[in-house]
Amino acid sequence: MSAERLLVLAEGYSGDTHYGKTLRGVLRYRRADVVVILDSERTGETIDGVPIVGDIESALPYGPTTALVGVATQGGRFPPAWRALLTTCIGHGLDIENGLHEFLVDDPELGPLAERSGVTLRDLRRPPAGLDCPTGENLRVPASIVLTVGSDCAIGKMTVSLELDREARSRGLRSVFVPTGQTGIAIAGWGLAVDAVVSDFIAGAAERLVVEGHARGGELLLVEGQGAITHPAYSGVTLGLLHGSAPHVLVLCHRAGVTEVDGYPGQPLLPLPELVELYERVSLPARKAQVACVALNTVDLEDDEARAAVARAEVETGLPAGDPVRFGAAALLDAVLGRLS
Amino acid sequence: MSAERLLVLAEGYSGDTHYGKTLRGVLRYRRADVVVILDSERTGETIDGVPIVGDIESALPYGPTTALVGVATQGGRFPPAWRALLTTCIGHGLDIENGLHEFLVDDPELGPLAERSGVTLRDLRRPPAGLDCPTGENLRVPASIVLTVGSDCAIGKMTVSLELDREARSRGLRSVFVPTGQTGIAIAGWGLAVDAVVSDFIAGAAERLVVEGHARGGELLLVEGQGAITHPAYSGVTLGLLHGSAPHVLVLCHRAGVTEVDGYPGQPLLPLPELVELYERVSLPARKAQVACVALNTVDLEDDEARAAVARAEVETGLPAGDPVRFGAAALLDAVLGRLS
Repeated sequence: MSAERLLVLAEGYSGDTHYGKTLRGVLRYRRADVVVILDSERTGETIDGVPIVGDIESALPYGPTTALVGVATQGGRFPPAWRALLTTCIGHGLDIENGLHEFLVDDPELGPLAERSGVTLRDLRRPPAGLDCPTGENLRVPASIVLTVGSDCAIGKMTVSLELDREARSRGLRSVFVPTGQTGIAIAGWGLAVDAVVSDFIAGAAERLVVEGHARGGELLLVEGQGAITHPAYSGVTLGLLHGSAPHVLVLCHRAGVTEVDGYPGQPLLPLPELVELYERVSLPARKAQVACVALNTVDLEDDEARAAVARAEVETGLPAGDPVRFGAAALLDAVLGRLS
Repeated sequence: MSAERLLVLAEGYSGDTHYGKTLRGVLRYRRADVVVILDSERTGETIDGVPIVGDIESALPYGPTTALVGVATQGGRFPPAWRALLTTCIGHGLDIENGLHEFLVDDPELGPLAERSGVTLRDLRRPPAGLDCPTGENLRVPASIVLTVGSDCAIGKMTVSLELDREARSRGLRSVFVPTGQTGIAIAGWGLAVDAVVSDFIAGAAERLVVEGHARGGELLLVEGQGAITHPAYSGVTLGLLHGSAPHVLVLCHRAGVTEVDGYPGQPLLPLPELVELYERVSLPARKAQVACVALNTVDLEDDEARAAVARAEVETGLPAGDPVRFGAAALLDAVLGRLS
């Protein structure tokens, strides 16, 4: 995918850590491919040195080849205003990468328009054909499987998996990041969005992913987690992924200080120790998983507060804790490898 | 749906309790509408007084108006031989009701053929348009919500919900059975197959079902459960349904004597006491659910063995237990109402 030069469409959300998480993910892990960002609310600013423009025309001078939908909307649908944006991109000959639940290829206007314009529409969440239930092959994959789990959505499970993978490869381990969502797929260039498959086949899709991760040379598979075990909307995806990917070890992710489900006011998160026990207990009886460590997202905190939050998490859970983005992933990977050996 | 006269297609599975569960369900709860069954392996026999024939032509004299696909195949796909059966049915002007994941309406041959023949294809599992995440309305539905949960698939969760609903209505309660799967939909004539929706929307679909159940006059909603919390294939559906339907009370269903997941040899079921605790602990923190009683499926046992199994379940769990089909649903409903009051 390195030939691509990305225009990231983040209209209204370039500063948002939840709905803008696809933008943030590609900026952190595909930075070299991002040439310009669109968000008319922040025209003239930059993010990580990438210029922000207010309309497609102003983006063209940067020579983008592909427009990436850089937002994740509630329910995965397109706000009406976006149709105009996408139509303009296609009109200017830009390919589109889209991670929402609405598939552009199926769109009665955009699909034919893209065909006439000779541009490619890639719906990152479109499930492959022939999905089915797990066969049990997930338990026979000759690799160590590590899944990130969490207290909520959009708190950094993908980031933790990517940081652990980078640290593992820097140590010469045959590690592979296994993408399970649209942003991970946009970053890695392969994968399967388990939240978009027919719900009977979540676990079957997850099994397929660990089998492919091993086929891609992975002896250590770092599987991107999804949702949370008591999330009011997405828990089904979380549990199907947990059982289908059949991890040996779990890494519990949490955004320091948060006590309520994002987007569901009044609905509490479970305390970290309860989450550790619950994830271990609901794991597949034929492949009991253990939580090796806690990965905290401390982006909202100062350094000293972050260190204090990490120390508190270690006391609460009795497990090693850290923020791999802020303090590095070495200690967390040590904890993971310790549980695997 | 009472105008329908059903030919139930159960080729090869009319005697099977797992894959033939749709046949068994309609025979128990829509008996009056079933006029003939097709299973060439049992031609000339009867089930509950309904004749079994070996081919479509032999079924026509019984005057069926609709052919119901009476099997649930692994993965929900059609065995090739079935295409011929369905083509013949359509050729003879029979409407088709299909609960598999493969939708007949989309079939390049069967769809157009049905149109030409003027017959209706009803894909019971086809999700409605506009599904999304839960809004929180599930927690505001002014009804008592009871969900059946279980140790495995195809052990009788739907049957238990239907028996509890029948018992409740016989007591004059405003009770409504809420169908969440193809057989329940075939029986009740409404509902939504939560295992067929995009996995991000399982909980949203379940919320929609309890809202509709109340709109249909239900003050007591008996929601058909799906799968099992540690099922290797279907646990995601189970948990999304648990969180989206937001039950106050759970009824734990188990097939007496079974210790392994059906279809997954070597994968153990959790013991009943562990299942009770696990289902309560993974329920929505904003709506903690309690298991009120244990419903045992004792179909494989003699009367005295069945009573012993019920007694054992009561000792193991400390909860009232019973087999509502064999011994009636009164005691189980008493336990449910006791937890609700």
